Amino acid sequence: MMNNYYVLNGPNLNRLGKREPGIYGNETLETLEMRLNDLAQKHGMTLTFKQSNHEGDLIDWIHEAENSKGIIINPGAFTHYSYAIRDAIASVDVPVVEVHMSNVHKRESFRHQSVISPVSEGQIVGFGMKSYELALMSFL
Amino acid sequence: MMNNYYVLNGPNLNRLGKREPGIYGNETLETLEMRLNDLAQKHGMTLTFKQSNHEGDLIDWIHEAENSKGIIINPGAFTHYSYAIRDAIASVDVPVVEVHMSNVHKRESFRHQSVISPVSEGQIVGFGMKSYELALMSFL
Amino acid sequence: MMNNYYVLNGPNLNRLGKREPGIYGNETLETLEMRLNDLAQKHGMTLTFKQSNHEGDLIDWIHEAENSKGIIINPGAFTHYSYAIRDAIASVDVPVVEVHMSNVHKRESFRHQSVISPVSEGQIVGFGMKSYELALMSFL
Amino acid sequence: MMNNYYVLNGPNLNRLGKREPGIYGNETLETLEMRLNDLAQKHGMTLTFKQSNHEGDLIDWIHEAENSKGIIINPGAFTHYSYAIRDAIASVDVPVVEVHMSNVHKRESFRHQSVISPVSEGQIVGFGMKSYELALMSFL
Amino acid sequence: MMNNYYVLNGPNLNRLGKREPGIYGNETLETLEMRLNDLAQKHGMTLTFKQSNHEGDLIDWIHEAENSKGIIINPGAFTHYSYAIRDAIASVDVPVVEVHMSNVHKRESFRHQSVISPVSEGQIVGFGMKSYELALMSFL
Amino acid sequence: MMNNYYVLNGPNLNRLGKREPGIYGNETLETLEMRLNDLAQKHGMTLTFKQSNHEGDLIDWIHEAENSKGIIINPGAFTHYSYAIRDAIASVDVPVVEVHMSNVHKRESFRHQSVISPVSEGQIVGFGMKSYELALMSFL
Amino acid sequence: MMNNYYVLNGPNLNRLGKREPGIYGNETLETLEMRLNDLAQKHGMTLTFKQSNHEGDLIDWIHEAENSKGIIINPGAFTHYSYAIRDAIASVDVPVVEVHMSNVHKRESFRHQSVISPVSEGQIVGFGMKSYELALMSFL
Amino acid sequence: MMNNYYVLNGPNLNRLGKREPGIYGNETLETLEMRLNDLAQKHGMTLTFKQSNHEGDLIDWIHEAENSKGIIINPGAFTHYSYAIRDAIASVDVPVVEVHMSNVHKRESFRHQSVISPVSEGQIVGFGMKSYELALMSFL
Amino acid sequence: MMNNYYVLNGPNLNRLGKREPGIYGNETLETLEMRLNDLAQKHGMTLTFKQSNHEGDLIDWIHEAENSKGIIINPGAFTHYSYAIRDAIASVDVPVVEVHMSNVHKRESFRHQSVISPVSEGQIVGFGMKSYELALMSFL
Amino acid sequence: MMNNYYVLNGPNLNRLGKREPGIYGNETLETLEMRLNDLAQKHGMTLTFKQSNHEGDLIDWIHEAENSKGIIINPGAFTHYSYAIRDAIASVDVPVVEVHMSNVHKRESFRHQSVISPVSEGQIVGFGMKSYELALMSFL
Amino acid sequence: MMNNYYVLNGPNLNRLGKREPGIYGNETLETLEMRLNDLAQKHGMTLTFKQSNHEGDLIDWIHEAENSKGIIINPGAFTHYSYAIRDAIASVDVPVVEVHMSNVHKRESFRHQSVISPVSEGQIVGFGMKSYELALMSFL
Amino acid sequence: MMNNYYVLNGPNLNRLGKREPGIYGNETLETLEMRLNDLAQKHGMTLTFKQSNHEGDLIDWIHEAENSKGIIINPGAFTHYSYAIRDAIASVDVPVVEVHMSNVHKRESFRHQSVISPVSEGQIVGFGMKSYELALMSFL
Repeated sequence: MMNNYYVLNGPNLNRLGKREPGIYGNETLETLEMRLNDLAQKHGMTLTFKQSNHEGDLIDWIHEAENSKGIIINPGAFTHYSYAIRDAIASVDVPVVEVHMSNVHKRESFRHQSVISPVSEGQIVGFGMKSYELALMSFL
Repeated sequence: MMNNYYVLNGPNLNRLGKREPGIYGNETLETLEMRLNDLAQKHGMTLTFKQSNHEGDLIDWIHEAENSKGIIINPGAFTHYSYAIRDAIASVDVPVVEVHMSNVHKRESFRHQSVISPVSEGQIVGFGMKSYELALMSFL
Repeated sequence: MMNNYYVLNGPNLNRLGKREPGIYGNETLETLEMRLNDLAQKHGMTLTFKQSNHEGDLIDWIHEAENSKGIIINPGAFTHYSYAIRDAIASVDVPVVEVHMSNVHKRESFRHQSVISPVSEGQIVGFGMKSYELALMSFL
Repeated sequence: MMNNYYVLNGPNLNRLGKREPGIYGNETLETLEMRLNDLAQKHGMTLTFKQSNHEGDLIDWIHEAENSKGIIINPGAFTHYSYAIRDAIASVDVPVVEVHMSNVHKRESFRHQSVISPVSEGQIVGFGMKSYELALMSFL
Repeated sequence: MMNNYYVLNGPNLNRLGKREPGIYGNETLETLEMRLNDLAQKHGMTLTFKQSNHEGDLIDWIHEAENSKGIIINPGAFTHYSYAIRDAIASVDVPVVEVHMSNVHKRESFRHQSVISPVSEGQIVGFGMKSYELALMSFL
Repeated sequence: MMNNYYVLNGPNLNRLGKREPGIYGNETLETLEMRLNDLAQKHGMTLTFKQSNHEGDLIDWIHEAENSKGIIINPGAFTHYSYAIRDAIASVDVPVVEVHMSNVHKRESFRHQSVISPVSEGQIVGFGMKSYELALMSFL
Repeated sequence: MMNNYYVLNGPNLNRLGKREPGIYGNETLETLEMRLNDLAQKHGMTLTFKQSNHEGDLIDWIHEAENSKGIIINPGAFTHYSYAIRDAIASVDVPVVEVHMSNVHKRESFRHQSVISPVSEGQIVGFGMKSYELALMSFL
Repeated sequence: MMNNYYVLNGPNLNRLGKREPGIYGNETLETLEMRLNDLAQKHGMTLTFKQSNHEGDLIDWIHEAENSKGIIINPGAFTHYSYAIRDAIASVDVPVVEVHMSNVHKRESFRHQSVISPVSEGQIVGFGMKSYELALMSFL
Repeated sequence: MMNNYYVLNGPNLNRLGKREPGIYGNETLETLEMRLNDLAQKHGMTLTFKQSNHEGDLIDWIHEAENSKGIIINPGAFTHYSYAIRDAIASVDVPVVEVHMSNVHKRESFRHQSVISPVSEGQIVGFGMKSYELALMSFL
Repeated sequence: MMNNYYVLNGPNLNRLGKREPGIYGNETLETLEMRLNDLAQKHGMTLTFKQSNHEGDLIDWIHEAENSKGIIINPGAFTHYSYAIRDAIASVDVPVVEVHMSNVHKRESFRHQSVISPVSEGQIVGFGMKSYELALMSFL
Repeated sequence: MMNNYYVLNGPNLNRLGKREPGIYGNETLETLEMRLNDLAQKHGMTLTFKQSNHEGDLIDWIHEAENSKGIIINPGAFTHYSYAIRDAIASVDVPVVEVHMSNVHKRESFRHQSVISPVSEGQIVGFGMKSYELALMSFL
Repeated sequence: MMNNYYVLNGPNLNRLGKREPGIYGNETLETLEMRLNDLAQKHGMTLTFKQSNHEGDLIDWIHEAENSKGIIINPGAFTHYSYAIRDAIASVDVPVVEVHMSNVHKRESFRHQSVISPVSEGQIVGFGMKSYELALMSFL
């Protein structure tokens, strides 16, 4: 896969569509995958899509992605304390874009700190599913 | 299971009876399960009993419990930093009672903060195994 | 009174039923007293019921309770700053259970700290009037 | 009393005129009462005037004032730590104006925080006895 | 102008009536000016009314007001960080009253600190447009 | 202008291309304007482009933009302390996207806090000039 | 009473001899009073001895002591938060010596701060009942 | 295995040799294992060598090691937040030595705090792979 | 102008001689300009002298000074919060010396922090008008 | 010397009588020595009197005093940071009384913390030279 | 001395064997010296052994050691505040290993911070006298 | 010596020219002394030049300098914690100028705080050896 990108989703994102729809909307993770695949196809990219509630899985996949062209990651709540994911990102030589669907800065104060941001290339925050699409376009 | 409740135990609680008996007593997790099943039976409840040292397992089980009547959770040390478990609780529409066997406020300062409490219904802290029994009775 | 327990209520709890019913419900302190007396009677306990808006009264009553079997205390707002009540509890050799009707961890940040918890046996928080009943049952 | 207002003064305000005249001036609490009664009379208001060094008294009077038209309160040093008075104010459905004679922001840092302000309607600070008069006029 | 006072309004107050009416009401800055002029006229005062979104303008006007009888200032958001305005006030020998329409202590925590208060005579907070009128009366 | 958007740049962005090229690259503000106009034209948008080193100008322009379809703002260093710009954004009923060219989370700690983020729709951070283009696309 | 001194004891000191004897010893408040009276008599002093668990009582007695020669005060737990007692001391023109029986600096961190110390003449800490005797001798 | 020791490595240490060689050198985890086995053999020790990116695995292995002679652990980034690993260590009655290859005190501030250190016997920090060898020798 | 230097003065320094003479002395900004011009002339330097109460003006002038030999700046109160001026200084390749007339470390705590110091060459603090003269001599 | 006590004075106390007489009075260290010797003689005690501006000297003397009956120490400014003196005190099995001439709690905030207090028996603060005399009497 | 190393011990370590044996054991500094000399001899190293309670002595010796092969330093309590020793270490081009006999992370919180660690090569903490031996072996 | 000044240098400044030349340059303390003596001679001043790594020496010399015309002090790392040197300066009635060769505000955060600045006349920071020369000129 010459032009492959990883899209990694962290804890509770498997519940998209069911979880706090006032914050996260009604569309599911499957919808997100379809929307992103459509966009990727238009630009000759392929996507590897993963979700887990286990921090260790995300670390394993980041290592696995070291030969991809880039990683889009929504670390969910791990954003705020997983220095292990941070180290995983720093250990691979691949550009990583951090995305969040909701504007975390409008929410509880613990969500204002990201331990991931200092090792990611950039952050796209607050645009719902469009956050991922903009992240994909950032690689063009 | 019409009237089913989940009882979730976090890291190191599999070592009950062996771990720091001065703090946690000599009875094991199996004893706890028996005591709670006895009490549940009296009130026509059934219980699903789980323990794991993996944060992700607890998140998976909270999602799984979304059709139960309630969750009793002792998140162990995850109490103090697992915003991912917090988000899992917020993502299900089921009442959650947080329990601790020891009085955490008599111990190290890091144990005084619970990131779980703001999303649980209530907390029962400091009564040993009786903490779980009182939690069960809170659902009556 | 062989098997007597004190139930102490702190400031503004005389306004139960009138005060912020969205938080505290519509039932009054009298209702609480009746419900607890019913429960106590079933288990052969007697109760001494007190309420005051004066910190000094609560201290006096804690001293007075030193020959009782136990104290259930809802210190109201004194929870957050009355080191004098804390010292009173430490000065008597009687088990003390701290209760709160609302889940204080969902409210303003000053309510998250209890100066009483390190000297109480345990805490029961967030179950409305049932918090007191569970506290009573904790003595069984 | 159709148009009655409470004027509550907290600890050490009974010593007005004697206490630190460089800060509080030479006039006494009696003078204040006369000046306020004069002003009230002009606008068809009546006043209930109270002072105590006991936190519990202030709480009792705030409850008592629940059928008045408004409360002017100078909580004295209780301003800075009495969450019990704060809860008392929140428990009555009456507008409360917080007043201070001196400009507390020019003094020791502990005086810069008021735990009362978030539950009062407004604050009038720094105008000596005129602070009370302006508070009274705020009700017009 | 023998008896002239300055009324200075800081950033975004030109949007009164349009800006967050739930907080600031529906009346405009023009209405405020009329209401204050009416009151001033009754007491033989004249008013110089200014508004700017530029911190430097407010500083210039405070200097300009050094020969007036007093300044009423609503520094808007500059309240919370403009040490330059604070120094401007300290540099003129004229009494300054700080006003806020909303009760800032009920809002975001950054609004709880005023760097202006230690150099103003007093503060009147939370009474809407009446805050300015009470400030004017404080000069009588 | 039916479909007009504002692009506002804060202090020191007039020096793009000259200022710290290791961080901000060699292209100038004029290049940015051309790139954005090209993109806008493709999607039937028009742009109003402004830059100032004066906080007050940015506030004025935000007010002016209240009838536009959206605002893209790079507040420069004002990001970290201008509560006045924050209030300006809150005072207009227009979606605002906050952009930064560099990944501010890799730089000095004062750059990690944005007082603007809680009132903007979303943030796009770290993609150089592409940050603005992604912001524009977020409005599609 | 030409040469009279007040000895004021705060909350829980009525339990001396019963309360935490490991910290406070076995002697009672009555013993303390006798020991101090003996010492006072030798030096031609008389003593007024008071104890209360009510903050307001201590304030009232400090006011009452304004014509005495000096005050010895052990404010108990009020030491750490009673700004009202602090203000009472500042309001009388009498030297005040603050005493503590235990070395508060060896105990919980909240006991390390005294809000009373900045307004007392001096502090004598850690000598058991001898703390009071040394305080009395400090007046010679 | 009479004289067996566990050597546990946490997240991202599987990438030794590939990960940030400027910090961690070019040798791999396999090399480390060989070097340690050589040293162990000389002293009649055997080693159980484990690595995982999953916090729960490390906890499981610490429990498993309760009958070994000692544990050498490099918790990687879990060092800084895994109170669950801390509790696991406290729950076994086996000496634990904490090692770090890099001098964490020369790096980002979050790496300066170890939640593991208070429950480990000692720490050896900053000697690259030699840190493990010294740890092994500490058991002699 | 081959050997030209900028001397920039921030807010309220136009009031030198009038403003708090106990702190800043009786001489005016004009005197300062004359004293500095005298000194500059002796050493073959020319000076461009500017003062403004507007942060944006200072930023504009710093940009303008990019072809000068050096900048002497007294940012007044902007010292403590203007990250925009800090960025302006970082954006020009000219040595900048920060001066203060008063010893800011003897004054209010907010004056102890300078956001400018990390990007200036050096600081000269506390020598009144001589601070500027020493700054000029630092360029020799 | 059967009944010998050490009196240790730290930095700058050799300047008593010359140093800030408003705070420390006009009497010299020699006067202090004489006053204390007089008092000691009355009670059959002997005194070893030492002063140094060198932290190491004080540590040496504390070690030297390990066979004395007690130590009176005024650590001067070392009070606030010398953990080495603290350790020296903890290393000898002799009662140590900490004295200060001025009421440190009325002065700069750095003087409010004593790193010595947790290892001394008690503290006597604020009585000028009488602080030492009371300390001596505390040993009776 | 071709292969010479310095072993520097800070304040109160001359009291090893006498000082708090529960923490530091019963062996003296002389024993330590013998044990280390034995080990050094085996590896063809020579040792220069120094101890002082004076910070300045330690600084002098670090300078003196600039031509040695390495320094082992136990700075005692200076660990926590002596930035002067830190600067001394940074000023010599010799590897420095920091050792502590006790596990400082199990003790008072002030002992958790080392100002020395960021300039030392590594730290060995908690192994009693063996800490020094491991440090010596780290140089092999 | 009618016109004598002290130049005091603190710890590690004896290593000027050898210590971190990237920060401190290549010139030695002897060069500094010559440069300053040259300058002093031109203005009819004499200099007493001292350096020590011992805090106590600096204190002794400050006392000794009480009859000089002024003190120039570079306290080295003592700048950041030596309250004893601060007190020494406050105890003599001589103007003191604090100098630093490097711009401490560009370095580690602990170097940003000076406990000396509040008692010195002024500070000159960041000009290498010229800092001392400017300090000398400040006395003219």
